[in-house]
Amino acid sequence: MKAAVLHAYDEKVERQELVTYEDWPDPRIEKPDDVIVRIGGAGVCRTDLHIIEGIWREHSPIDLPFVMGHENAGWVEEVGSGVTSVKPGDSVICHPLATNGHCLACRRGNDMHAEDSSFPGINAQGGYADFLHTNERALIKLPTSLAPKDVAPYTDAGLTAYHAAKKAARHLVPGQKVVVLGVGGLGHIGVQVLAALCGAEIIAIDRAESALKLAEAGGAHHAIKADGGEVDAVMSLTNGHGAEAVLDFVGEGDAVSKGLAMTRANGSYYVIGYGGKIEIPTIDLIVTEKSIIGNLVGTYPELVELMALADRGAVELATREYALKDTNKALHDLHLGRVPGRAVLIP
Amino acid sequence: MKAAVLHAYDEKVERQELVTYEDWPDPRIEKPDDVIVRIGGAGVCRTDLHIIEGIWREHSPIDLPFVMGHENAGWVEEVGSGVTSVKPGDSVICHPLATNGHCLACRRGNDMHAEDSSFPGINAQGGYADFLHTNERALIKLPTSLAPKDVAPYTDAGLTAYHAAKKAARHLVPGQKVVVLGVGGLGHIGVQVLAALCGAEIIAIDRAESALKLAEAGGAHHAIKADGGEVDAVMSLTNGHGAEAVLDFVGEGDAVSKGLAMTRANGSYYVIGYGGKIEIPTIDLIVTEKSIIGNLVGTYPELVELMALADRGAVELATREYALKDTNKALHDLHLGRVPGRAVLIP
Amino acid sequence: MKAAVLHAYDEKVERQELVTYEDWPDPRIEKPDDVIVRIGGAGVCRTDLHIIEGIWREHSPIDLPFVMGHENAGWVEEVGSGVTSVKPGDSVICHPLATNGHCLACRRGNDMHAEDSSFPGINAQGGYADFLHTNERALIKLPTSLAPKDVAPYTDAGLTAYHAAKKAARHLVPGQKVVVLGVGGLGHIGVQVLAALCGAEIIAIDRAESALKLAEAGGAHHAIKADGGEVDAVMSLTNGHGAEAVLDFVGEGDAVSKGLAMTRANGSYYVIGYGGKIEIPTIDLIVTEKSIIGNLVGTYPELVELMALADRGAVELATREYALKDTNKALHDLHLGRVPGRAVLIP
Amino acid sequence: MKAAVLHAYDEKVERQELVTYEDWPDPRIEKPDDVIVRIGGAGVCRTDLHIIEGIWREHSPIDLPFVMGHENAGWVEEVGSGVTSVKPGDSVICHPLATNGHCLACRRGNDMHAEDSSFPGINAQGGYADFLHTNERALIKLPTSLAPKDVAPYTDAGLTAYHAAKKAARHLVPGQKVVVLGVGGLGHIGVQVLAALCGAEIIAIDRAESALKLAEAGGAHHAIKADGGEVDAVMSLTNGHGAEAVLDFVGEGDAVSKGLAMTRANGSYYVIGYGGKIEIPTIDLIVTEKSIIGNLVGTYPELVELMALADRGAVELATREYALKDTNKALHDLHLGRVPGRAVLIP
Repeated sequence: MKAAVLHAYDEKVERQELVTYEDWPDPRIEKPDDVIVRIGGAGVCRTDLHIIEGIWREHSPIDLPFVMGHENAGWVEEVGSGVTSVKPGDSVICHPLATNGHCLACRRGNDMHAEDSSFPGINAQGGYADFLHTNERALIKLPTSLAPKDVAPYTDAGLTAYHAAKKAARHLVPGQKVVVLGVGGLGHIGVQVLAALCGAEIIAIDRAESALKLAEAGGAHHAIKADGGEVDAVMSLTNGHGAEAVLDFVGEGDAVSKGLAMTRANGSYYVIGYGGKIEIPTIDLIVTEKSIIGNLVGTYPELVELMALADRGAVELATREYALKDTNKALHDLHLGRVPGRAVLIP
Repeated sequence: MKAAVLHAYDEKVERQELVTYEDWPDPRIEKPDDVIVRIGGAGVCRTDLHIIEGIWREHSPIDLPFVMGHENAGWVEEVGSGVTSVKPGDSVICHPLATNGHCLACRRGNDMHAEDSSFPGINAQGGYADFLHTNERALIKLPTSLAPKDVAPYTDAGLTAYHAAKKAARHLVPGQKVVVLGVGGLGHIGVQVLAALCGAEIIAIDRAESALKLAEAGGAHHAIKADGGEVDAVMSLTNGHGAEAVLDFVGEGDAVSKGLAMTRANGSYYVIGYGGKIEIPTIDLIVTEKSIIGNLVGTYPELVELMALADRGAVELATREYALKDTNKALHDLHLGRVPGRAVLIP
Repeated sequence: MKAAVLHAYDEKVERQELVTYEDWPDPRIEKPDDVIVRIGGAGVCRTDLHIIEGIWREHSPIDLPFVMGHENAGWVEEVGSGVTSVKPGDSVICHPLATNGHCLACRRGNDMHAEDSSFPGINAQGGYADFLHTNERALIKLPTSLAPKDVAPYTDAGLTAYHAAKKAARHLVPGQKVVVLGVGGLGHIGVQVLAALCGAEIIAIDRAESALKLAEAGGAHHAIKADGGEVDAVMSLTNGHGAEAVLDFVGEGDAVSKGLAMTRANGSYYVIGYGGKIEIPTIDLIVTEKSIIGNLVGTYPELVELMALADRGAVELATREYALKDTNKALHDLHLGRVPGRAVLIP
Repeated sequence: MKAAVLHAYDEKVERQELVTYEDWPDPRIEKPDDVIVRIGGAGVCRTDLHIIEGIWREHSPIDLPFVMGHENAGWVEEVGSGVTSVKPGDSVICHPLATNGHCLACRRGNDMHAEDSSFPGINAQGGYADFLHTNERALIKLPTSLAPKDVAPYTDAGLTAYHAAKKAARHLVPGQKVVVLGVGGLGHIGVQVLAALCGAEIIAIDRAESALKLAEAGGAHHAIKADGGEVDAVMSLTNGHGAEAVLDFVGEGDAVSKGLAMTRANGSYYVIGYGGKIEIPTIDLIVTEKSIIGNLVGTYPELVELMALADRGAVELATREYALKDTNKALHDLHLGRVPGRAVLIP
């Protein structure tokens, strides 16, 4: 099959040819619960840029050459002998993690913290290719209303945004405020999920006017330009108290300190984007009783829930399609901030 | 002042003159935290019919003659010496209960279960009158967007619906279903609150086409005519499983058994309307692991939350206005099912 | 192998030979995840008496002859080709339900509400025998501190008590009261779990002095003889308010109405025992805002949690051992109220 | 009256006479809900040392001279005209905050985040004196089993430990581990509260053998000497995963980085002690999905709950009594780590 392959890191993402479109071995069924999926669409994620930069190496070591792509959807191509819940031809979306379901985390529904798992595109070969190797437990059948290429980015970008937004929605009530800091591929889903799951007022913050328009279309009640005065703007909207929840989809630069500053006493600051650092004296945390909440991608049931929202149009993903052989263009466009919503590769 | 006064019970609500429009003593400030409110509007509730019928006597004894009216909003007329948070002229909505705030239930924010309280219109003189006696802790200042007469029914009908819908919203996730059984004065608020607070699909059930239209306008995803086939209809919409939550705003007749029947295993049946009886073998409850949840009116903070939704138009109350001297017409119209939404008396 | 086999129902549990000790076909591995367990101990449950009486027929139809026994522990005897997490010789306790793990309930950790499952001893051949057929997902490896015959009744009696007690513990705080109604095989575990999981005061109620002593040894703060005055006694201990939670392990006779009567306003009545009927006007539920909570057996992770408590001695099971060939004696002793704690059959 | 008065800051807590025992104006009733309490005992807190060091100035400005003492219990001496729930002579414990109860935080039961409040000993004159000025809403009547001088430190040290331990207990289940880092005045209460409120295994860590003995007496299942190997020791007790919850009662030095390191993925690190700084890359938080939770003192209902535990002996406070005129000795002893449990000043 064909794949877009990473052969070398590039700390500054400057190389013209970040990945190479070339032949790559077909994945094969090895275990009874294995499934091969023909890719319909593979999302391009900022994490892929971070992999290229080499900053993920210490968290999740891989050998080059490597096929990235952890946001995958398509059609079942082949199944192992023990697979009963899907069959070839079914259109499916892939939860990013493939687990065996035996550890206690899995038994509690929290597969993301499985003791033993594979994360295609992160620590196993991913979906920038014609076919993907995953397993039965990772697959959710799609309703006919949803085409694989239109939903692929839900599996990580969408699911991570959903997971964090759902955590926040659980403690937010009408009359309270929630900030979405950064309205890109994840943030624009975050806005829509918050609008669907809670009655709090949503304040969207971004540098780009286009992003703010996307936020307003998605249900944000206030849109604030990130021009240096965004903390003051949030304080002004909240009688000087700050917001009960801040979802930081940036997680680097001054977003972190600003995000913490615009969080109300007794409120929660959700870390979703990354690249920066949290620095705060313990006395500031105890006097204000703020919480800092880390967020990973969501669970399998949460992806089912997100698909239910997508199926009835309550959440819509803004995508731009690229042919798989144009992967380098997609990566550079994302790096330069030229992708509204999410880029998707089509084999 | 003038008031609409109940002088005698009427088990079948047949009497032409259920209440008498007549002179009644002005309420007076007695304690430091007392407040007199000039009524802008007083909602007419099915509970008022039940008071007239005499069925509330055993739960909350009153002496006749009595002034009903437990859904009140207006303007502060006079305040006691210790009142600091409101002043004459402020437009306010009245939480139905007046408490002193000292017991543990109040300290936990759950005033409705206060050890010592007054419930004007239920166990103290109510708001079918020019003026109402209540206290400082019962009052919420209204934003300028909301006129007292337009919001009065939120204090009980709206707040009870909000309270139950919020309980259900806490455990409902996208892909699940919630049934609203009875789309009248409370139910049509319930639909809107569910749409605002959770991502579940809403199934509204009522006998009247007009009620179903109100439900759909309020955000219901499915509208089912209560023609005898409603349990089957819900089963059909839920793959034969039933709904994860059923909010029963009827609570009498066959609504109870039908509501329980359309509740999914491990789901919750919320009792809000009343008049009927729950009868279920214990084995049925344990095999299905269903819960039956009683619901009273909501808390003070919940009324603040509901006002936040109303202020930004996320919830709208359908009302029909009657002059206070036409209270009998309002009561009879309600009894005969001729009030879309909620009747409000204007002094 | 040998088994104790039910050949005919007996509505009054009068027959001397309720089951017959006889030859029965060995269970066999059929699917890749199948496991055969050699029984070390099988608990005898009141539900077995109800099966004999025939009252379970409508909820879970079975064909006679039938081998009961849904509380099983022992050693892995043989495994299917796909089993990886246990091997022959491992000592294990069996979660009562065998599921495939693919439905959404399973993926949320709630196997008991699986769409497709087998419940040995209830709707499949059970553990009143030398061997049991179950599957990999049902098995939890035992620590060396716990022998199969000593823990078998945890799988249903213990796990059901744990499940209900954990639900209650979540909302109970110090200063509040919880009633355990009926301190038998389940109730005496319920007392200990409550003592381990929350800071509320425990009030145990039973007809038998021996049961009350067992309750006090398990951590009950108050022990009340069920002599007709138990509602008054609870009211007296709670300043006339009732208990915030009532766990009814009886569920029949006047326990139901008494249990509801001793539940505080805004409190919860947990139905665990069965055989009786709940009858309550809807107005009583809404005025008091009580909840009635059905309870099934607990989840797989909950059985792991219960084993952790047992492993460190925080919960202890009172058992009486019977040889498998003396099953009839065990059943009659249970029926006559002569088993302190729980009877266990040893093949 | 007499009081121990702070006249000047001392950054290194070196001065022999940190405070002066001298005459000070009697507090007076000014508002209807004011109450004067005759001090029975006033706890000495590490925060008092931090006030002397001057590091609290930026968070809560005060004018010198100042009377510290924010852990107070005693007897009602005099009440304002509107006070109804206590009377002179009642023995009481004082919630540290005096609020008017009108803001939404108070109405939700969360007085600590009141918009308007007084915190005697922090931003108003405190209890290192014969008498204290507070208000009705701050007072809880003591059962006869509890003497003011024996319970005073519960109001802040105890209540803060309770508040954090209760948060952790809500998500801890049997089989999980919780670390108590630092078993001093707060930590030794934390251990006991965890033992009372949840079924998780408690791992206590401290430098002092005496503290570890106190922890074991209070219910800790494991006691680890803080000798540099404590992270490894926790990892060894948790199969290399870390603890599901870490309560850091130290909050300075290397406790912070060690506390975060011994927190399991998806677990929570509770900041209670302070003086240090949290520094963590955002990627570490998202990959592990850890939460960092700030903690302030608990609510009024939580102090009622803690008194219920103390009343039945489930929690015991280790105290050392000092005469009020020996306040300097108490402060120095605390500074030098010579107070087992908590120092209490007796006027």
